[in-house]
Amino acid sequence: MGQPEQPEGVEESTGAQRPPLRVGMVGYAFMGAAHSQGWRTAGRVFDLPLRPELAVICGRDAAAVRAAADRHGWAAAETDWRDLIARDDVDLVDICTPGDSHAEIALAALAAGKHVLCEKPLANTVEEAEAMASAAETAYERGQLAMVGFNYRRVPATALARQMVADGRIGTLRHVRVSYLQDWLVDPQAPLTWRLRRELAGSGSLGDLGAHIVDLAQYLAGEPLAGVSALTETFVRERPLPGGAARGLSAATAAGTGQVTVDDAALFTGRFASGALASFEATRYATGRKNALRLELNGARGSLAFDLERLNELWFHDGTEPDTHAGFRRILVTEPDHPYVEAWWPPGHGLGYEHTFVHQARDLVHAVAEGRRPDPSFADGLQVQRVLAAVEESAEKNSVYTPIAV
Amino acid sequence: MGQPEQPEGVEESTGAQRPPLRVGMVGYAFMGAAHSQGWRTAGRVFDLPLRPELAVICGRDAAAVRAAADRHGWAAAETDWRDLIARDDVDLVDICTPGDSHAEIALAALAAGKHVLCEKPLANTVEEAEAMASAAETAYERGQLAMVGFNYRRVPATALARQMVADGRIGTLRHVRVSYLQDWLVDPQAPLTWRLRRELAGSGSLGDLGAHIVDLAQYLAGEPLAGVSALTETFVRERPLPGGAARGLSAATAAGTGQVTVDDAALFTGRFASGALASFEATRYATGRKNALRLELNGARGSLAFDLERLNELWFHDGTEPDTHAGFRRILVTEPDHPYVEAWWPPGHGLGYEHTFVHQARDLVHAVAEGRRPDPSFADGLQVQRVLAAVEESAEKNSVYTPIAV
Amino acid sequence: MGQPEQPEGVEESTGAQRPPLRVGMVGYAFMGAAHSQGWRTAGRVFDLPLRPELAVICGRDAAAVRAAADRHGWAAAETDWRDLIARDDVDLVDICTPGDSHAEIALAALAAGKHVLCEKPLANTVEEAEAMASAAETAYERGQLAMVGFNYRRVPATALARQMVADGRIGTLRHVRVSYLQDWLVDPQAPLTWRLRRELAGSGSLGDLGAHIVDLAQYLAGEPLAGVSALTETFVRERPLPGGAARGLSAATAAGTGQVTVDDAALFTGRFASGALASFEATRYATGRKNALRLELNGARGSLAFDLERLNELWFHDGTEPDTHAGFRRILVTEPDHPYVEAWWPPGHGLGYEHTFVHQARDLVHAVAEGRRPDPSFADGLQVQRVLAAVEESAEKNSVYTPIAV
Amino acid sequence: MGQPEQPEGVEESTGAQRPPLRVGMVGYAFMGAAHSQGWRTAGRVFDLPLRPELAVICGRDAAAVRAAADRHGWAAAETDWRDLIARDDVDLVDICTPGDSHAEIALAALAAGKHVLCEKPLANTVEEAEAMASAAETAYERGQLAMVGFNYRRVPATALARQMVADGRIGTLRHVRVSYLQDWLVDPQAPLTWRLRRELAGSGSLGDLGAHIVDLAQYLAGEPLAGVSALTETFVRERPLPGGAARGLSAATAAGTGQVTVDDAALFTGRFASGALASFEATRYATGRKNALRLELNGARGSLAFDLERLNELWFHDGTEPDTHAGFRRILVTEPDHPYVEAWWPPGHGLGYEHTFVHQARDLVHAVAEGRRPDPSFADGLQVQRVLAAVEESAEKNSVYTPIAV
Repeated sequence: MGQPEQPEGVEESTGAQRPPLRVGMVGYAFMGAAHSQGWRTAGRVFDLPLRPELAVICGRDAAAVRAAADRHGWAAAETDWRDLIARDDVDLVDICTPGDSHAEIALAALAAGKHVLCEKPLANTVEEAEAMASAAETAYERGQLAMVGFNYRRVPATALARQMVADGRIGTLRHVRVSYLQDWLVDPQAPLTWRLRRELAGSGSLGDLGAHIVDLAQYLAGEPLAGVSALTETFVRERPLPGGAARGLSAATAAGTGQVTVDDAALFTGRFASGALASFEATRYATGRKNALRLELNGARGSLAFDLERLNELWFHDGTEPDTHAGFRRILVTEPDHPYVEAWWPPGHGLGYEHTFVHQARDLVHAVAEGRRPDPSFADGLQVQRVLAAVEESAEKNSVYTPIAV
Repeated sequence: MGQPEQPEGVEESTGAQRPPLRVGMVGYAFMGAAHSQGWRTAGRVFDLPLRPELAVICGRDAAAVRAAADRHGWAAAETDWRDLIARDDVDLVDICTPGDSHAEIALAALAAGKHVLCEKPLANTVEEAEAMASAAETAYERGQLAMVGFNYRRVPATALARQMVADGRIGTLRHVRVSYLQDWLVDPQAPLTWRLRRELAGSGSLGDLGAHIVDLAQYLAGEPLAGVSALTETFVRERPLPGGAARGLSAATAAGTGQVTVDDAALFTGRFASGALASFEATRYATGRKNALRLELNGARGSLAFDLERLNELWFHDGTEPDTHAGFRRILVTEPDHPYVEAWWPPGHGLGYEHTFVHQARDLVHAVAEGRRPDPSFADGLQVQRVLAAVEESAEKNSVYTPIAV
Repeated sequence: MGQPEQPEGVEESTGAQRPPLRVGMVGYAFMGAAHSQGWRTAGRVFDLPLRPELAVICGRDAAAVRAAADRHGWAAAETDWRDLIARDDVDLVDICTPGDSHAEIALAALAAGKHVLCEKPLANTVEEAEAMASAAETAYERGQLAMVGFNYRRVPATALARQMVADGRIGTLRHVRVSYLQDWLVDPQAPLTWRLRRELAGSGSLGDLGAHIVDLAQYLAGEPLAGVSALTETFVRERPLPGGAARGLSAATAAGTGQVTVDDAALFTGRFASGALASFEATRYATGRKNALRLELNGARGSLAFDLERLNELWFHDGTEPDTHAGFRRILVTEPDHPYVEAWWPPGHGLGYEHTFVHQARDLVHAVAEGRRPDPSFADGLQVQRVLAAVEESAEKNSVYTPIAV
Repeated sequence: MGQPEQPEGVEESTGAQRPPLRVGMVGYAFMGAAHSQGWRTAGRVFDLPLRPELAVICGRDAAAVRAAADRHGWAAAETDWRDLIARDDVDLVDICTPGDSHAEIALAALAAGKHVLCEKPLANTVEEAEAMASAAETAYERGQLAMVGFNYRRVPATALARQMVADGRIGTLRHVRVSYLQDWLVDPQAPLTWRLRRELAGSGSLGDLGAHIVDLAQYLAGEPLAGVSALTETFVRERPLPGGAARGLSAATAAGTGQVTVDDAALFTGRFASGALASFEATRYATGRKNALRLELNGARGSLAFDLERLNELWFHDGTEPDTHAGFRRILVTEPDHPYVEAWWPPGHGLGYEHTFVHQARDLVHAVAEGRRPDPSFADGLQVQRVLAAVEESAEKNSVYTPIAV
């Protein structure tokens, strides 16, 4: 505490009378918990035109999904996502499963007339993503919305950065450098989870971390990448199988280990259509870096920098100031006029990771209520997928510069 | 995203079957919103022995309190706190009003057999605080708990700091320096809210910000202050009245301004019983510092540092390391083994301000279920009040060193 | 490297033809080495009106002073400072001895018609400092200059801060907080050097570190302190004697230890004449802080912050900017238009600690050539001494607020 | 000040009796000033086996070189480097000219029996560098030394990093990321200096900044790069000619502008022989970044990070510590046991940019006195040149991965 009052009750109407938006969520692990928090909180903090309802949660293990429903506050539970989609009391399907099932579930949900929120990466292949984007476009004409979950656009600091770029505060863009550094695979005894198996995850750090930074880079730059040159590497190629997961893993050896079939790290450089240069690095081997999504944009008039490990801060250098007084300033993105912040706490009382999911829910609810195409759309997700495919192609072809398909 | 799975369902039982803890909250402004978020979320994230229910909210304006109830998810609303206390369906009274009403409400709630959570500062005077601590002690013998809301003990980083001090990681304590810097009064046209009026707020930055840092300093040091020497100042002595608040303000002038009757800033030094020195600063005039509660402890074996504006970080210097490799390290307090963190997100996915209220709710629920005296107790709140009183006394007596009453 | 050319030869004349300023330096330990570097380098980097000559160095041990002369480049060596002062080939006496001999040497040097540079603190007592300031005033009328060595005014960042305060960039001053944290006494086995003996050093961290921060605070604020309230402490009261230093130490015990007769730490608060508040802390027990002279000034229009451990940086918050884009900015004080910097390296190529002595030499040479009263003068040194005396008096009198004598 | 004494006179002998090392320096612009400072200071701070003498300086403009000699303290001046090499009173030739003349001067100096220190990059082409390395090898057999001036190896922090890598403190290397960011070309009206002309500079940011980071990356990793994939760009292709430099610039247009014939920015990725990945970025368009040479190494046991804008700090993450207490620590590289530091100031009293040249002089003097092959040698300079050539080749060939010639 320790601040002037935040007046309450200014918005006098309340959530209770608003029409509901009934959500059915598939998956209940890490992303499921985060999305639950988002749906549960959005209407309590923001004044929303629709009232999100945590209607149904779905998972294959009946006992576990029931426990998750109770824990996270979902009214009902299903064990087959087809049943969830078939329910009349679900308006929106929120897909939090691994990437290999995104396309099938999303296509079915759209066919069933539901709105869809799909975790990133949109799909494991460009083909799947194309089918999804196409279905989303058709569904949009029927009034259904489809959004892809690039939640890092909804950190107040990145949203402010986007505004500042759009307002011309950094001028002609010269450089974008983005990295997403984690370290949870440094230990060669870390187990072979689904995230390390191509058939489930599609790719490794590239699809997991790289998808985020490609989306953010393009979102902030306001333009797509034109081409990339890439190196990828798998540092540890064999890992112990996780506890009960040995069954059915074709690559498993007698000794209880299995092959890592995805990349551990991906480095790539690229060009934007405007001629700006970009550099990307995604890795799970950056010892000591826990969630270091770092980005910097340099333009002819200024620069912006951000680090997800300090997500309430945006650093800005205003190149139009006299040299004697210029410098990178730390904007604490906690002021009422900053994106999303007015609904929260007084200046300096920072937000955390999960707030991105609250903001995502907020924005999607508004889009649904207003019939607006959500941002980022499945088409945006497809475009990111094409960049990732070009990265993989370049890495296979001796790093040769590979244009992004349009 | 981008992390190994957080296994769910380890704690298999769910909130639904647990007995409820029915909360009645008085006040619904800034603290009310924060406490609501805490009560609403605690049972969704932590596995609690009792299920918090947002039973009743109370405020004087019937329409506004009804709107707040809907917004924040409270089942019922009252306009008189006496009615709230009289209800059978309230187990715990959560007091979020200005300090002048804490004593009356808390004493009544304890007399009515309720548990109590009271926002800090515990009261506006030592006398009130003594009565409250005494009543809390009596009530404890009847099985009722009373906690004071020093929520900053429940930032994972400060909780970790306390553990490290208790574990001897910094050795004999030499220095504690703490400041709490805000800037919302820099503008002389900022209005004369209740926080600037002695009859409501008791004191200014001292009770608001100073109470926090006195509590944290003593909590982290693990010992009480023995005495203090203080300077206080009111930089801007007359301010415009807020919109509709002119009525009844005896100090109001014809011109629509009123007297600031509290301190704007308080500086004090002190001694701990062990001989360690402490320095404190609380101000609302530190331009550009939004919520900078900064602390540093220096001991013979190491040091710890923290800044609330970067609340996911604790800085630690291990003085037992060889000089060549020693340095202040940034511990990102987001690991599963850190206090409170296991229930949240993977490493590096930080928390925010409001999580302190979720943790406060969690800890209080556990204390109630187990009949444990809560920490910090009303006695702890009284002790802080005595320090604040000594600060005011010293400031009045030409800064003379003033022992803290025991 | 990696920068546009710094054009050379713009200032076409050279040091060779300039009249010399022949320096005689008393003392050759830490400060002697630093001053040597300053005198040796100033004329190589800056275009000076007089050419500093390292004429004579003086120390009691003939062999050691001869070695120091060779090492540091002094043309001659003396073993009695009276002989140094008597020499015709010395224009300026630079006093780098412990504080107990400052007065005697400085008075003699002024009496002998020399200019004087005296290390801080000016003296060990107010009485000595008064005599020195008085003699300096008289000497000034004869054309002699006397400067006290508060070298931290000559960090480009602090000099820039002073300019910005003077230019009104932070507006009406509200707060000054300054600390000087070191840790070299944390180990109770660290020996009892002269710095821990009152008869030589005058005081402990107060005169050594506190003198610096009192001077800087007043220099930056542009006004003197009006009064102070202080706590001091000696944490470790007995320490081993250093190797050969046991002789003559009256407090030495049989076991080879001696009494620490100075303060280990000093905390004080104060008021400026304008009503701004100040807080000070000087300690040698801040584990992990090596040379952390940190300062922050908060004014009604902006704030400035500095840390000597990052001496090329000045942090500035411009409070007149819109909240959405405001923040503390890191000014890298390495631009050609920054104080002292044009003579050095391109932007971003930082300076170090010793450069303050080069700048001190530069400024003193200019003052001598132009007959200008140097800044800081002995009168400034005396004023700091009065503040230190008030600190000691307050500490002795139960921290009571003690006005500074004028 | 404010520290325990640095004992002086431990090394009792002095420079005066030592045999001289007479230096002749070619060039006197930015690098000339820095090298002068290095030669002038090294023997005053370090105890050297030979006494560096600033014997002769050389430049084409007689008046300017004479002024530079006076300014920087050189005993004599020449206007033709051939005359400098021909002098008997020169033992070592220090080459500070643009890269196009390095080979000719160095080969002549080696042929004349001189030791050589040559600024980086070693040459503008691999062919020249090969000739130089070959000549250096032959000369070494005759007792002559040849060093290339990668001064950033001699920042105490980078030297410490090298030690820590060699000691296994970070374990198997996974990632090296290095960037060197400046911003002095952001303004399209910045003039077309020699650094922007291929015939003089060889390349742009690549040879200037890229050479530094390639050398540092390989030095710290302790192994050479195996191959690279690169993108380069010239953002502003035409610039105004500088004042008097229009003559003879064939690309100059009537309007007083000329073509930029070098890269403005170079991005490349690479692989080390061990399989570690590397990423590099060199640019002069990073608005607000003045001299940001940033590097990070991630290994299986730990990580190291450095930023030249804060050159007294090395950040270290020890991955072998328990997660609860681990974090990147800021080692202030100012302890007596840190490389080069013992000769300087007490802990926390930082060094600056120019100290790298003092250390370079120190190391070269020791190598000469001991007949040791200097580090980095011309062979090391050649190897860096081969990396730069591979970068240019890859950039021309659509970024295809290009092995480094051995």
